[in-house]
Formats: sequence, structure tokens, C-alpha cells
Amino acid sequence: MATTATNRRVILKEYVEGYPREEHMELVRGGEVPLRLTGGEPAGSVLVRNLYLSCDPYMRPKMSRPVRESYTAAFVPGEVLTGYGVARVVDSSDPRFKAGDLVWGITGWEDYSVVTPPASKLLAKISHGAGDGVPLSYYTGVLGMPGLTAYVGFHEICAPKEGEAVFVSAASGAVGQLVGQFARLAGCRVVGSAGSAEKVELLRSRFGFHDAFNYKEEPDLDAALRRRFPDGIDIYFENVGGAMLDAVLLNMRVHGRIAVCGLISQYNLADGEKDAVRNLSAVIAKRLRLQGFIEPDHKHLYPKYEAWVLPYIRDGTIAYVEDVAEGLENAPKALIGLFHGRNVGKQLVRVADGE
Amino acid sequence: MATTATNRRVILKEYVEGYPREEHMELVRGGEVPLRLTGGEPAGSVLVRNLYLSCDPYMRPKMSRPVRESYTAAFVPGEVLTGYGVARVVDSSDPRFKAGDLVWGITGWEDYSVVTPPASKLLAKISHGAGDGVPLSYYTGVLGMPGLTAYVGFHEICAPKEGEAVFVSAASGAVGQLVGQFARLAGCRVVGSAGSAEKVELLRSRFGFHDAFNYKEEPDLDAALRRRFPDGIDIYFENVGGAMLDAVLLNMRVHGRIAVCGLISQYNLADGEKDAVRNLSAVIAKRLRLQGFIEPDHKHLYPKYEAWVLPYIRDGTIAYVEDVAEGLENAPKALIGLFHGRNVGKQLVRVADGE
Repeated sequence: MATTATNRRVILKEYVEGYPREEHMELVRGGEVPLRLTGGEPAGSVLVRNLYLSCDPYMRPKMSRPVRESYTAAFVPGEVLTGYGVARVVDSSDPRFKAGDLVWGITGWEDYSVVTPPASKLLAKISHGAGDGVPLSYYTGVLGMPGLTAYVGFHEICAPKEGEAVFVSAASGAVGQLVGQFARLAGCRVVGSAGSAEKVELLRSRFGFHDAFNYKEEPDLDAALRRRFPDGIDIYFENVGGAMLDAVLLNMRVHGRIAVCGLISQYNLADGEKDAVRNLSAVIAKRLRLQGFIEPDHKHLYPKYEAWVLPYIRDGTIAYVEDVAEGLENAPKALIGLFHGRNVGKQLVRVADGE
Repeated sequence: MATTATNRRVILKEYVEGYPREEHMELVRGGEVPLRLTGGEPAGSVLVRNLYLSCDPYMRPKMSRPVRESYTAAFVPGEVLTGYGVARVVDSSDPRFKAGDLVWGITGWEDYSVVTPPASKLLAKISHGAGDGVPLSYYTGVLGMPGLTAYVGFHEICAPKEGEAVFVSAASGAVGQLVGQFARLAGCRVVGSAGSAEKVELLRSRFGFHDAFNYKEEPDLDAALRRRFPDGIDIYFENVGGAMLDAVLLNMRVHGRIAVCGLISQYNLADGEKDAVRNLSAVIAKRLRLQGFIEPDHKHLYPKYEAWVLPYIRDGTIAYVEDVAEGLENAPKALIGLFHGRNVGKQLVRVADGE
């Protein structure tokens, strides 16, 4: 058995302004890496072989020159990108893991990573067996950060009641497709928006949205929402921001809740260019609650969520559509595609076969 | 004793666009009114002599041509304005009241009003005696809607913790001056903004704000807030909206709360003209909660609030500054003044002497 392996890494070449392009990133040869911990790493380090990497919109703000309001540290030019992924443990000084274990959590965009504390403390062991009908890649999606995000945002932040009207933007994405299905399971009426006919069809046929529309074909978003919600929206699951939020505010019902999960329409705009939101008077008139949240604050709910969602995945009640890019070399392109809506479903990258 | 009286009424002449002007309203002779109920009124009606009328910013949106998102019915051109006031009962078919009782609630901008259900059901008897050091006019302010608004918004919506940093805009106004004092009592550090040197001085000297500034003298609101909150703002009590909200968003701390009480900077702008808010990405980054609220949803808390605040008023712990216009004929001007910041403290109108 080889004692070293060739590592490849995707690094950030320079800070991004506007839309990210492939030249902002680079796949570099990282040289030979030993296939065991050398002893020089911090206690609790875990050496992993990365199998699947997750492309997530939150990575874009981390590619910008750091600003005051960042909630996660910016990426550093010249260094490897990091993000959620699924990996196999090669060696571990964390007693929770042994070689061969499958884990998910924050890792590097590379073939092999030494995950050190504190990130390694957040690695979670994937305990269910392979071959039981639950793809390993789901730990970048429905069983990973996007899944918990959808669960927390919808169930904890929005506290849905049966019969309520729910609107989800970016509804075929990693999180949106789940919110739609969770809303249907909660007895809500749910409508989604997406950016292509193919995605809209997916919302209706695979995810059980009661209605769906292509926002790019609606010159008047306010009117588009009013037609679909003549009695207003009780819950808005916000993934996009900008003009959609402004239109939604006009269509919310009294005591409506808005879970602010993402603002993907804004991430590539400079500070002074960000879309104006002008309808905030609705927040008072309708006593709205807007609540921002991020998944890391709610990690303690993961076991509850996983136990709840796994049976639905196994019996097909909940579908999950993935868009899988093949190979680390295609990771930059896959990430960039998110911001142009090229992905259909959860975007991820297969680095190596793990099953 | 006279059996009729001459009534005067302030009517809305036409819907307002932009800033309200005196010619949008008119003081008209309403003719002779009988000084007892005639029997033709709905059961539960109450005939009152109005003593004090409250000028409140929320009245401005009611003067516009009705739009979808109104939470209160618009005023009707040709009809008397309505608003909060303090009045003496002249006659009543509501068994809760008898002639001579003092009440507060929604009444008309006129000498005498017949308050009919449902408004009459919301009239509340003023039970504490006159001459005990608590001015009757306070029932338009600290003991009325603005008081409960400040209490609910600060204590219920923001859930302050000792040591937190609180920012209040329009801080010398009917609500803001109370929020500052409630924050100080809660052990918070509180800073207020207002629109003149006189008001800023009031914040510091009468209301115990730890710091205060004149927003009109701060070309860069973001920098002004950063200087005063180097570690960020935990709680923002929002009375103004627009550019101030945008600057506050940049200065909020993680898990901050924003009670959205009023947006006075926006009320005189047409829909398309309203100020752009562009910094909503902070809502996610800092996991902020923005909560709109209006006092009528929280009426059930009034007894608790009154019992809590009355001792503080009596012993001088809580100060309350009023700006009293004399006579119904000056009511339109007083109301208009709110939107130019002419009032210093709670703006009200003395219609008749009740004490």
C-alpha cells in the first residue's frame, strides 16, 4: 500500500469582485502527501480522503476582500478553498474516528486534507451503512448543511401551521427543494420560484410544490405573487433577496414570517450596487418578523433532524435532486455555475468514489 | 345646564401626497350637538368631551389614498380625523362608563365625539385620581399608546439583557424618550439620535441616555454609529427607517434585535421614492431579527405596563416631556410639525381643560 499520494488543491488566486470566474481559482499540484499523520499536527487532527465537495452560495462572500460584516472568515489568496464535504478517514488523532470511517463536515477542496481543530471537532461520523439506499453524497445536501438549514429555517424559525401559505425562492436549489417538501408535509400550500422551465417542472413534478413559476418570465414580481397568493403569504423562505424580497413584502399577510437564509442575487454586487429594498413599511403594517440564521448556530438539532428525515428519504417521501460535477478539476466551474443558476438541484463535486 | 354645545371638527380635506400641509385639513363648525345620547346611536356608544388629542406619526399613512398594505383604514376626505385622546364622558350607553368619568382611547379630532363600537369598546377608564402628580395628558403619552408601544417594543420584542448596547432613533419623541429610560432601567447602555441640539441635550440631561447625537450633523451615519458603538449594537429601536436603518444594519452585533416601531422618514415619500435599504445581508451574517409590531396587538399587556410604570412616574424615576399645542384650531399645525421634527417631546393638543 502506498505511503504517499499526489495531492491536488483548488486555491483562490485573488479576491473576487463581481461574478467569480474560473481564473479566480486554480487547480494546483500540492505535491506528495504522506498517507498518515506525521505527529506534527495539532492533537485531534484527522487526515481524510475527500470524496464529495459541496458547492454552496455562502462561499461567494468568503471570496471577497474581507469586510466588516462577514460572519465567516474570508478565504485567503494562495490557500486552498474550504467547504462542506464527505470524506473517508485515512488516519486520525481524534479518538472519535478511525481509518476507514466516513465523515462529513468542513474540509478542503483537495484530494487529501488534514482537518485540524476546531474544524475537526465538527466532523460528524456517517453512521448508517452504505448500500441502504441513501447515497453518501446526500451528506453534502439533504443529510448535511443544506438539509439542516431547510429544517431549522422552516420548522424552527417560521413555526408553520397547517394550511398556511408558503413561498420559497430558488426553490429547486439545495435548500429550496427541501423547504417545499417540508412545507407540503406540514400541510401548507407551497409555491416556488426558479429560473428555468426545467426547474419549474421539477418543482411541480418531483417536489410536490402546489404551484411554481419562472421568475425570469415575470416582469412584475408583485403581480406574479399576487396571482398565486390572493390571500397573501404567511411564510417566505428567502434565498435570493433584492427585487424578489421587495415584491414579497407587498404580498405578506399579517404576522407573516420571513426566514432569511440566503441572498444569492446580491452576492456578486459591490456594496453600493446592492438592490434597493423599499417596501419595509410592510414590516410594521403587517407585523412581520424577518429572521436571519445560519446553520452552524443550530448544529445541536442535527440528530433530531436526521432521525426525522432519514425514514422519509428511505421510503421516497422526500426526493432530493443533485447536480454532480465529476472531478476536482471541475469544481471551480461548478461553484461559479451556482451564481448563474446553471445547476439543477444541489450542486456538488465528486472527487473520488467512496461507495 | 346647556343641553347642546357647538362642535368644531378637524376634517381631512383631501388625500395627502408628500408632506401634509395645513390646507389638507380644515377646522369646520360641526353645528350644535346634543349633550346626551339621543337613543339613535348603536348600543355601547359613549358621548365624550375631548380634552387632549394625541398627534402621532402613524396618522400620516392614514392620510394617503388607501393602498394595499395599510394596516389601519385610511381617513376619509370630508370626515373628521380620529386618533388617540383623553376625554370626559358626557353620556354613555356602555355600562362601564358614567357621566364624568375620564377615559382614553380612539376619539375624534373635535370638541365632542360619539364614540361607537368597536372603538368605544377600546376606551379605557382612567382610574387614578386627578391631582396625584400624574397629568391627565400623560394618557396620550407615557400612560397611553406611546408608552405601551415603548414597553412592548423594548421589553417584549427586544428581550434586553443587562449590559447590552441599545440604540434609539427619534429618541426624544413620544416613544423614544421612554425606550431610552427603560433601557437605562434595564441596565443597558443606551445611545439616542435626534434632530436638534436642544433635543440631544434633553436626551442626555433629562432622559439619562449615556450618549446622544444630532443625526443632521453626521454626514456619515455609519461612522457616527461606529464611534459610539465600537463593539456594535445589540438592540435597535427603529422609529425612522431609511438611511439610518441602513447604517444601523452595518453596526449590529451577532444575534441583534431590531424592533420596527416606526419609519417616520418614509411616511411622506411616494412608493417609488422610498429610501433604499441595501445592507440586508447583515441580517444573515449577524443572524438579526427584525420584528414589526403595533400597539393594538398588545393591549392585554396594558394593565401590567401601567402598574409597572406608574410608580416610576410618581417618584420621578421616569421623566416625560410633552409639547402641548393649545386649542383644536392648532391641531393640524401640531400634527404637521411632527414630520418636520418641530415638536420637542410628545406632541399633543389641549382641546379643553379637564383637571
